[in-house]
Amino acid sequence: MKKTDQFPFLNRSFLKKITLFLFFMSITVHAQIDKVEPPFWYAGMQNPELQILFYGKGIAQNQVTVSNSIKITDVKRTENPNYLFVTIDTKKVVASDLIFTFKNKSKETFTQKYSLKKRRENSAQRKSFDASDMMYLLMPDRFANGNRNNDSENSTQEKYNRELPGGRHGGDIEGIIKNLDYIAELGATTIWSTPLCEDNDAAFSYHTYGQSDVYKIDPRYGTNEDYVRLAAEMHKKDLKLVMDYVTNHWGIEHWMIKDLPTKEWINQFDTYTQTNHKRTVIHDTNASEIDKKITLDGWFVPSMPDLNLKNPLTLKYLIQNAIWWIEYADLDGFRVDTYNYSDPKGIAKWTKSITDEYPNFNIVGEVWMQSQAQMAYWQKDSKIAAIQNYNSYLPSVMDFTLYEAVTKVFNEDDGSWDKGMVKLYDNFTNDFLYPNVNNMLLFAENHDTNRINQTYGNDIRKYKMAMTLMATVRGIPQLYYGSEIGMAGDKNKGDAAIRLDFPGGWEGDKNNAFTKEGRTPEQNHYFDFTAKLFQWRKTKAVVHFGKTTHYIPENNIYAYFRYNANETVMVLMNNSNETKTVNTHRFKENIKDFKTGKDVISELTFDVTNEIIIEPKSVLILELK
Amino acid sequence: MKKTDQFPFLNRSFLKKITLFLFFMSITVHAQIDKVEPPFWYAGMQNPELQILFYGKGIAQNQVTVSNSIKITDVKRTENPNYLFVTIDTKKVVASDLIFTFKNKSKETFTQKYSLKKRRENSAQRKSFDASDMMYLLMPDRFANGNRNNDSENSTQEKYNRELPGGRHGGDIEGIIKNLDYIAELGATTIWSTPLCEDNDAAFSYHTYGQSDVYKIDPRYGTNEDYVRLAAEMHKKDLKLVMDYVTNHWGIEHWMIKDLPTKEWINQFDTYTQTNHKRTVIHDTNASEIDKKITLDGWFVPSMPDLNLKNPLTLKYLIQNAIWWIEYADLDGFRVDTYNYSDPKGIAKWTKSITDEYPNFNIVGEVWMQSQAQMAYWQKDSKIAAIQNYNSYLPSVMDFTLYEAVTKVFNEDDGSWDKGMVKLYDNFTNDFLYPNVNNMLLFAENHDTNRINQTYGNDIRKYKMAMTLMATVRGIPQLYYGSEIGMAGDKNKGDAAIRLDFPGGWEGDKNNAFTKEGRTPEQNHYFDFTAKLFQWRKTKAVVHFGKTTHYIPENNIYAYFRYNANETVMVLMNNSNETKTVNTHRFKENIKDFKTGKDVISELTFDVTNEIIIEPKSVLILELK
Repeated sequence: MKKTDQFPFLNRSFLKKITLFLFFMSITVHAQIDKVEPPFWYAGMQNPELQILFYGKGIAQNQVTVSNSIKITDVKRTENPNYLFVTIDTKKVVASDLIFTFKNKSKETFTQKYSLKKRRENSAQRKSFDASDMMYLLMPDRFANGNRNNDSENSTQEKYNRELPGGRHGGDIEGIIKNLDYIAELGATTIWSTPLCEDNDAAFSYHTYGQSDVYKIDPRYGTNEDYVRLAAEMHKKDLKLVMDYVTNHWGIEHWMIKDLPTKEWINQFDTYTQTNHKRTVIHDTNASEIDKKITLDGWFVPSMPDLNLKNPLTLKYLIQNAIWWIEYADLDGFRVDTYNYSDPKGIAKWTKSITDEYPNFNIVGEVWMQSQAQMAYWQKDSKIAAIQNYNSYLPSVMDFTLYEAVTKVFNEDDGSWDKGMVKLYDNFTNDFLYPNVNNMLLFAENHDTNRINQTYGNDIRKYKMAMTLMATVRGIPQLYYGSEIGMAGDKNKGDAAIRLDFPGGWEGDKNNAFTKEGRTPEQNHYFDFTAKLFQWRKTKAVVHFGKTTHYIPENNIYAYFRYNANETVMVLMNNSNETKTVNTHRFKENIKDFKTGKDVISELTFDVTNEIIIEPKSVLILELK
Repeated sequence: MKKTDQFPFLNRSFLKKITLFLFFMSITVHAQIDKVEPPFWYAGMQNPELQILFYGKGIAQNQVTVSNSIKITDVKRTENPNYLFVTIDTKKVVASDLIFTFKNKSKETFTQKYSLKKRRENSAQRKSFDASDMMYLLMPDRFANGNRNNDSENSTQEKYNRELPGGRHGGDIEGIIKNLDYIAELGATTIWSTPLCEDNDAAFSYHTYGQSDVYKIDPRYGTNEDYVRLAAEMHKKDLKLVMDYVTNHWGIEHWMIKDLPTKEWINQFDTYTQTNHKRTVIHDTNASEIDKKITLDGWFVPSMPDLNLKNPLTLKYLIQNAIWWIEYADLDGFRVDTYNYSDPKGIAKWTKSITDEYPNFNIVGEVWMQSQAQMAYWQKDSKIAAIQNYNSYLPSVMDFTLYEAVTKVFNEDDGSWDKGMVKLYDNFTNDFLYPNVNNMLLFAENHDTNRINQTYGNDIRKYKMAMTLMATVRGIPQLYYGSEIGMAGDKNKGDAAIRLDFPGGWEGDKNNAFTKEGRTPEQNHYFDFTAKLFQWRKTKAVVHFGKTTHYIPENNIYAYFRYNANETVMVLMNNSNETKTVNTHRFKENIKDFKTGKDVISELTFDVTNEIIIEPKSVLILELK
């Protein structure tokens, strides 16, 4: 338990507020409305219950009524008189404008318009991302600066400073929109952008995980309308947009944190308490209560207050916010940050509420655990979580154990007992633990890890092996922006080192990696391989949803097959430093009567009936004929 | 797949035999009976079906009948005419001698007496070992030579040679019987002896895992009657006897291997094929059929033919053999060697058949897996195995992941993120995966591993921490003979180095570690600590079956509590190299209103209300008051 003076604790201010509240109750003030959240809603949602937050000085003293014969089912007041949470039943209500009327003790009234909009056609049945997709992960501040006019904004504290590694570099939504063709050319079909909602922290706001307004795109990235336009432009190009959602914490500059509706809105301790990061406490039957509490309720950093999902008001707020973005921006999926740092029941309810509303919607959670059993615990309908009568309802989890293996194996030249390819093999031997192994997000790196080209010293042979693995095993491959042109970055030098600006995203960049002509020969080598691999993958149902058979690695050579009724793809990886002749008789149950295999990358045809000669540190993707 | 000429393959001899069989069928020979197995049986077993193997030249040509109005329900002949498998129904048959009559085509007859004996009272309801026990593992050839007359025997090939590290050293059952008081003094309540049935290999037979007759104690260890006497002597002293059972393989010298009843009695390939040891194939949904087959059907070594538990005749033979030993020798449990190298359905049926017969009987299986989920798969009623509709029915598994941790942690002086005590903590965070965590066998070493005192360079502080862990966490502690007097042994130097003769077990040993006077001061230091620890544990229900709460290690200090309605024991381990002051407020939920804790070993009393000062590399076991 660490103590710090960095965060102004809220307890004292609360006492003050309660006193003020009692004061307000006895006198009359002229209330006004400063915020309404959600700012509007949609008619015809599966869950008709809508909790509207009205915020304004002294708002709580009012009685509230609503037009259109709509029923108010609940009104919640907290110890802060500036909040009123009004729940209405929208069942069978058509798209329309409602009028809320507020009346105080002195019978003074004022009104507030509230829109229930019409949903897009088939909105509830929207498709989402799945194993047929390839997800391109980018950080918007570091990808491309499409609009120089929003580099700094009056309403946000941190100003443009590209000299600062951890500063705002000016990347924005316009930059993404301008480069959608580049992303599509790479074979990506989905973009996961790190968060775009406003983060008004004074420093390091470029990562944007400390949000100050979750109904508003950060003006330095663009407007809410720009975000809607991004989705629309992407959809035109058959690309899918995944929002990075943060359920666990907000930024210290969030307007509600500055004037907390209730002490229970966030998790608080007597003194600043950091999470111990031991997420195993959740399923650990031996865990102490205090350790559990610190894991779940402790904060990441003093500038990120930890949201209390045990509080029904907070939980409902977060559920509606998420649904609002899906409906408003026409989203295709969520990636959820630090998924299992939240109250387990709360986060499950959040997840289920969204998938109840959108049955095909995919949500991938960051559940960074040490073993497959622990990872599998967090996937929807897990038999392991069922031991404890738990169900997260989370459709997709990130394959962290595979990631751990991928960052080591290609540097292990000897393939003895537990080294090299065996680590990959071992990972997949546990697939039976997962309820849905095709819905695992596969990654060799992301914005929180060492870059894969750093780990492998820009040895493109190892990059090719890693990417081929991502592209050909079960699950949804994810690629981190820049790796496709050989970008490296050392996590040990700090987060900024793994989040460098994409070359070509800024006016005057001498190296413009967005175009073939602008790329260096080495960058083209990386790009061309990556694009060829993932363009091929796009149409390969056998790789998306086919069955897998793999063989115990021998001599650091790993062979696996993806197959369905129509096709068989053989992947052969030689992780040793020697050219090897691989006898194929052992693979008879998959090779069957196939005679040849055409390598997807080199387009060379190999005879597969007897043996295959394979170069050191290389991989073949053979379409069997 | 390795090829070898070491093993004389059986295929050709089979063809010969089938030809011979056809020959026998057409002429009349005078059959005789050389073997009957089981040699006798018991009346009143829960399963009334008894499969009796009659072996003798040409026996298969006979028709068989039986006395006492008993029904023969099945007669099985194989391609080897020397075998006849006769199944009778013993339901409601009282203890008696039956007469089997054999009649050939020429109406010549002969008879064979067969006894159904009376069972011991309450035999079916016999108690077994559990978490209230401490198991002492010894290798009989290396423990004590109680009878010099059986050091070499005419009937077995390998002769006494104590000069050979891997030779026969003369240890025997008499040696165990003579030293039962020593074992009891140590606080052990159960003995697991490695196998005692005859192993007639020409070399390395001392380990006795390549058995040549599973109904007969190896004459160099003693007689069947000696084994029964061992159990009886142990029971007088409240000690339990656990037999090491081998279901996976026999020795090449087994009489049935030399004249196989059927090719399917054992698993065979076209050429000698060694197991790949990849036991994960069993649950791996991606595994290839050939890999699975090699794992399960491949042999350990050419001298150990792999038994085919898919063959109902073989399986029934092994089930009855196991039950026979329980009943005959009055056993208290089994340890099963290489449990998951056998056909999974077969081994489950073997296990269930035994526990159906003896509902309280404990069986601990060697399932050496890499993760808790994989281990838990093998315990009875596993929810993880249920994913694949599998149930091993195995009551107890060996805690290999804990073992792996125990062999590393006490050498890790820094306690950073994933080092030191955290590895122990992490192991126990997965306890929820196990159906019965109290029925895990805990060990720091055994006859297949480096010795713990070798790993820790005879640093008795580390030995004390390791043994305290074994004695105070959930499960059944096991101690490997000799470690209690500080014996070391380097597995890298070969198996013999970890299986040295116990000093004092042989006439003329200068160092007799069986007595206080005979032990060196250092040996007494080890012994006294161990005996004090386990004698204390014997009566501590709170440690046997109490609940556990543990706390996330901080600075390489690990604290956990065992508690029930009556008692609380606090264990505090300082694995750092510095004296530490531990604030106890964090443990409030377990310390409650207790004021003091008396350390079990030093008998010193500590104030636990505020802080505890603890020496480097040491442990306190505090009984809270």
